[in-house]
Amino acid sequence: MNKEQMSDLIVSAKTQKSMTWNQMGEAVGVSPTWLASACLGMSSVKEPVAQKIADLLDLGADVVQALMVYPTKEWDKAIPNDPLIYRLYEVVGVYGETLKSVIQEQFGDGIMSAIDFSMDVEKEEDPKGDRVVITMNGKFLPYKSW
Amino acid sequence: MNKEQMSDLIVSAKTQKSMTWNQMGEAVGVSPTWLASACLGMSSVKEPVAQKIADLLDLGADVVQALMVYPTKEWDKAIPNDPLIYRLYEVVGVYGETLKSVIQEQFGDGIMSAIDFSMDVEKEEDPKGDRVVITMNGKFLPYKSW
Amino acid sequence: MNKEQMSDLIVSAKTQKSMTWNQMGEAVGVSPTWLASACLGMSSVKEPVAQKIADLLDLGADVVQALMVYPTKEWDKAIPNDPLIYRLYEVVGVYGETLKSVIQEQFGDGIMSAIDFSMDVEKEEDPKGDRVVITMNGKFLPYKSW
Amino acid sequence: MNKEQMSDLIVSAKTQKSMTWNQMGEAVGVSPTWLASACLGMSSVKEPVAQKIADLLDLGADVVQALMVYPTKEWDKAIPNDPLIYRLYEVVGVYGETLKSVIQEQFGDGIMSAIDFSMDVEKEEDPKGDRVVITMNGKFLPYKSW
Amino acid sequence: MNKEQMSDLIVSAKTQKSMTWNQMGEAVGVSPTWLASACLGMSSVKEPVAQKIADLLDLGADVVQALMVYPTKEWDKAIPNDPLIYRLYEVVGVYGETLKSVIQEQFGDGIMSAIDFSMDVEKEEDPKGDRVVITMNGKFLPYKSW
Amino acid sequence: MNKEQMSDLIVSAKTQKSMTWNQMGEAVGVSPTWLASACLGMSSVKEPVAQKIADLLDLGADVVQALMVYPTKEWDKAIPNDPLIYRLYEVVGVYGETLKSVIQEQFGDGIMSAIDFSMDVEKEEDPKGDRVVITMNGKFLPYKSW
Amino acid sequence: MNKEQMSDLIVSAKTQKSMTWNQMGEAVGVSPTWLASACLGMSSVKEPVAQKIADLLDLGADVVQALMVYPTKEWDKAIPNDPLIYRLYEVVGVYGETLKSVIQEQFGDGIMSAIDFSMDVEKEEDPKGDRVVITMNGKFLPYKSW
Amino acid sequence: MNKEQMSDLIVSAKTQKSMTWNQMGEAVGVSPTWLASACLGMSSVKEPVAQKIADLLDLGADVVQALMVYPTKEWDKAIPNDPLIYRLYEVVGVYGETLKSVIQEQFGDGIMSAIDFSMDVEKEEDPKGDRVVITMNGKFLPYKSW
Amino acid sequence: MNKEQMSDLIVSAKTQKSMTWNQMGEAVGVSPTWLASACLGMSSVKEPVAQKIADLLDLGADVVQALMVYPTKEWDKAIPNDPLIYRLYEVVGVYGETLKSVIQEQFGDGIMSAIDFSMDVEKEEDPKGDRVVITMNGKFLPYKSW
Amino acid sequence: MNKEQMSDLIVSAKTQKSMTWNQMGEAVGVSPTWLASACLGMSSVKEPVAQKIADLLDLGADVVQALMVYPTKEWDKAIPNDPLIYRLYEVVGVYGETLKSVIQEQFGDGIMSAIDFSMDVEKEEDPKGDRVVITMNGKFLPYKSW
Repeated sequence: MNKEQMSDLIVSAKTQKSMTWNQMGEAVGVSPTWLASACLGMSSVKEPVAQKIADLLDLGADVVQALMVYPTKEWDKAIPNDPLIYRLYEVVGVYGETLKSVIQEQFGDGIMSAIDFSMDVEKEEDPKGDRVVITMNGKFLPYKSW
Repeated sequence: MNKEQMSDLIVSAKTQKSMTWNQMGEAVGVSPTWLASACLGMSSVKEPVAQKIADLLDLGADVVQALMVYPTKEWDKAIPNDPLIYRLYEVVGVYGETLKSVIQEQFGDGIMSAIDFSMDVEKEEDPKGDRVVITMNGKFLPYKSW
Repeated sequence: MNKEQMSDLIVSAKTQKSMTWNQMGEAVGVSPTWLASACLGMSSVKEPVAQKIADLLDLGADVVQALMVYPTKEWDKAIPNDPLIYRLYEVVGVYGETLKSVIQEQFGDGIMSAIDFSMDVEKEEDPKGDRVVITMNGKFLPYKSW
Repeated sequence: MNKEQMSDLIVSAKTQKSMTWNQMGEAVGVSPTWLASACLGMSSVKEPVAQKIADLLDLGADVVQALMVYPTKEWDKAIPNDPLIYRLYEVVGVYGETLKSVIQEQFGDGIMSAIDFSMDVEKEEDPKGDRVVITMNGKFLPYKSW
Repeated sequence: MNKEQMSDLIVSAKTQKSMTWNQMGEAVGVSPTWLASACLGMSSVKEPVAQKIADLLDLGADVVQALMVYPTKEWDKAIPNDPLIYRLYEVVGVYGETLKSVIQEQFGDGIMSAIDFSMDVEKEEDPKGDRVVITMNGKFLPYKSW
Repeated sequence: MNKEQMSDLIVSAKTQKSMTWNQMGEAVGVSPTWLASACLGMSSVKEPVAQKIADLLDLGADVVQALMVYPTKEWDKAIPNDPLIYRLYEVVGVYGETLKSVIQEQFGDGIMSAIDFSMDVEKEEDPKGDRVVITMNGKFLPYKSW
Repeated sequence: MNKEQMSDLIVSAKTQKSMTWNQMGEAVGVSPTWLASACLGMSSVKEPVAQKIADLLDLGADVVQALMVYPTKEWDKAIPNDPLIYRLYEVVGVYGETLKSVIQEQFGDGIMSAIDFSMDVEKEEDPKGDRVVITMNGKFLPYKSW
Repeated sequence: MNKEQMSDLIVSAKTQKSMTWNQMGEAVGVSPTWLASACLGMSSVKEPVAQKIADLLDLGADVVQALMVYPTKEWDKAIPNDPLIYRLYEVVGVYGETLKSVIQEQFGDGIMSAIDFSMDVEKEEDPKGDRVVITMNGKFLPYKSW
Repeated sequence: MNKEQMSDLIVSAKTQKSMTWNQMGEAVGVSPTWLASACLGMSSVKEPVAQKIADLLDLGADVVQALMVYPTKEWDKAIPNDPLIYRLYEVVGVYGETLKSVIQEQFGDGIMSAIDFSMDVEKEEDPKGDRVVITMNGKFLPYKSW
Repeated sequence: MNKEQMSDLIVSAKTQKSMTWNQMGEAVGVSPTWLASACLGMSSVKEPVAQKIADLLDLGADVVQALMVYPTKEWDKAIPNDPLIYRLYEVVGVYGETLKSVIQEQFGDGIMSAIDFSMDVEKEEDPKGDRVVITMNGKFLPYKSW
């Protein structure tokens, strides 16, 4: 069973049980965003957590195995099409230089890791229209000299 | 004076006065990240704030004018090169589908606006290495039917 | 049933019943253009409307479900080939800067939303050759400062 | 004087005189959108209208000549970056197939001309946020058989 | 039956009957080049002509239907590979500016339509090597002002 | 003097003398289309013809030299933007397979040369709108076996 | 049977019979390189030679037919990946301008045909490492004036 | 003096002295093709040969220095435009797989070096049209196992 | 059996037997990195080694044959996506000019071969986090003059 | 003084003093490869080291300042052209999957950092041709779950 087949199975079990990523995250004890990335095939999961996910959805050992596989993290569209994802790409394009300047001024020459990294999504209720709040948290890695 | 010339002038005045974006943001009363994006030419500034920025750096009326111009928001590299900016692009590639799934499950069919949007950067001190925390806050826009 | 299978089913039922998008739009009480976008898999439909569409074409519950799914809005050709679609792309290329200048002069720094958005097509009869009239209507979103 | 130099001169005279495209269009007796496209170098202008534009802005014969030149209509970015222009590109991507289906059902096999074509922008006031209304009007051209 | 299946059927019936495009064009009373474009799926055919084509090749009603469908005119290679087709692309690249200058000098600001358009191929016998003569005939469309 | 400087000089002398490519072609005794391609820098000219062109426009020996140089035939846009040139590209895309099939059926396996090649433009008057007629004439080159 | 199926059949028959392209070329009386290009689907073969190839490999009439078809000469990778093929691409990139200068100085303004063209590969034994010798032989085609 | 300035100086001195690459190669005692590649900036030259080239053209020590610099071998067009260079690219595209198959059958798994490599151009006179003969000679490099 | 099928078989036998590339390399007597490249289809293997690999994993003669085939070395993504592979690409981008300068200064004008080449991976234990050490070893190939 | 001007100054001072990167590295007490990357503008340098570099080459305070600036690490060619750099790119393409498999098997799911990273070049003398040895050393970063 590859990651894509695993993902189809998980998403359809989740739909059938009417569970949300938030409910699943709470049940398993991990962030819903990270759980979703694992179930969609973009993160690998350690055995006990993989087992909990499978149990929650009444799925079998092959799903547990597939969740544990280290993924190849690939995407088809260098410039994304879907409007929700494109807006995030646009933020990187419009504010990338700004973020580089602000981060390196505070931290020195280096980058924010996308590996030692976590991210979450929250809803901020607002009478003028609810707001999506995405928080990214990555370790600062200074460039080495050698 | 175009945005690029304006940006060169501002950055070099800022360097000469040894001011940080944080200090400038505090002095002007706006977010340092937004201030940086305006000074780097990617946002337009209303007159009173533009005047404050120029005063702070002892710059003239042409800088005030240039800050107020509505920018053309363009970037050269569809796939960014600089490692700091690339990591943000990678986050969009790796976690884009995840974010779409998590956001639309909570909010319905729609997107997070990149226009009615704000973003900030903070430093989280950590003995194992300080962490960069980026918070993005955008209005949820539901798709219309018509 | 995915969106593509749904779309094939709907288009072929529509052909068999010799219905036009205009007739379907009128029967369902929505714009024919929006209805077409939903039936071609590029918009999601709320349950009662999805049911009406399925009833109109004698299609089953799986089509209703598929119409309700939030779509991934993707297209294959960054630069479209089909002459009808290319002409629209050309309009954006030739007149994009013009539209930016005219809109921002009237509305301020911001954009026309493509989400809080509707669009319709009409035929203008003309002895020298009928004319296609496309009307796009999108909410103006001003850039935030923060 | 090439189109680019002409455009710089016109835009800066227009700014100095605090004229809008709408005022200029009214004064000259043409659509503000078309006038803007000509002044930005993407349309050619017949002699009497070119003269009126130059008179309105106190510009000389070289501007008149430059306005009359047939332009090379080129754009740098196959996929536009600027958010306002990108949203129009996105509309073509998301709704292109829809528009093809709706138009060809009403008109037969053919296209909407982008040459025998006009376009205008209007502001629709709305308490929930003003709306941009773009109307495109192009001659339907049926494919020939031969 | 889609255009691709139709095209395979027609080409193989044509091969089996050893008919050429020229013979088929003559039998049907249309240009062989246009007939070929229709049979290869790039033009739509009105009912009576579609019937004649099917009769000529002893093909059924599904081929008639498929010939009448309005095609999506797409090609895979933005820059063609096949040497015969590439040479035509090269002609556009090398002589495109020349054609623009020569045509617009004679006709005014506008284009040659690729829709109200016909094209034919002839063989010019020549002792030093026969020559291919392609004639393109398109309506001149002047740009509108508005 | 490079081809670009030569071209600027020729085009501006031609404008000043109000000569058309047709008049120049007639005066020099060559096709106006070929003459235009040479004057725009995409063909090289033998000495006597180069001299005639220069004489006609009162230009000097450096223009004669520059006309004789063998050009590097390059174009910037793999997919052209200008609508007049794009339509020609579209013809190649839409009808390329058709032309390959029609030509190779008549001539055998091979191509139409774009080197041993000529091309002309004529105006066909038509009450419903004048038509542009482009004739391309290239030697057929059969593939060798060896 | 299409070219790809034909090619698979030929290559596997050739492997089973342990024949080399050199042995096949000698047996058929043609260049091994050209024979290979035909068997890999990139050249068409006249009937008697196609028959000889099929006989040599005990293959049937469908292979004969498939060898005779005029191929569509397409390749997937605009910039090749395989190191052997990339090196040839690199030679064109590094020495292309050089070859243009050397050839046109000797022959005049024109090109080396890739159609009236042959090519062979030989092994030059060398104690420091054997060498590959590729010889390309193409007719010079001078540009026409007209 | 960079390679580009050097190349301009050499080519213009060569033109003024009416020397060909063949004459220069003979005078210097190297292949004309290699000499051309060095003078056009794509190969580096050892000191004594660089001196001979400069002497031949009455050029100074800065040209000698520039000839000796190790070049950055870059080209602008991933797919070349100029017809002469494109034909070489086409040969790689059409016959690349063929060459891989023929070479590896004779030599084993490996490649033809483009570094330990030489290439020459000759004219083969032919009453039906002279022919260009390009010979490439590269060391075979077998893949290592390790 | 093609390389892809072979690779799937090998990887799944290896998983079932819980063998690592390191254990397999030791058992076969070759570098684990090279062994992995062969098993993943990017290197060809001589018969005795192929037999040993198959024996080790209890696989049959078809795997032995498939391991011996000379591979077509192709990759899909010109710019890799997977973060581990992208980092290597980034190293080439950021430090490519540096490596060229350092290598050519020490060795002269030439390159490091990627064919007469080996590469290994080692783990360097480090209390602050283990380190990956990649060693590349390629023959220096000087450019020839000729 | 920007990084490019700095780099030109340093390289020309280095040439004038006939110093190698190795000698400079030894004199300054850092790796020659890292020193080269800093002098070519791809790494930032702390003040005392920047001073030593400037002293060594008799360059002024502006060079010291420029060496300390945090660079924007950009490269023009997504696929490099220069043969030396291309070979490194090819190694990533051919062996990327292999390295991912070998590294993740030894270290777990994660990557080799290109930031907490060093790299050196050595010459391995060999009678059959000297060899280039590149050693890359990067911290292993495991993916976080959260």
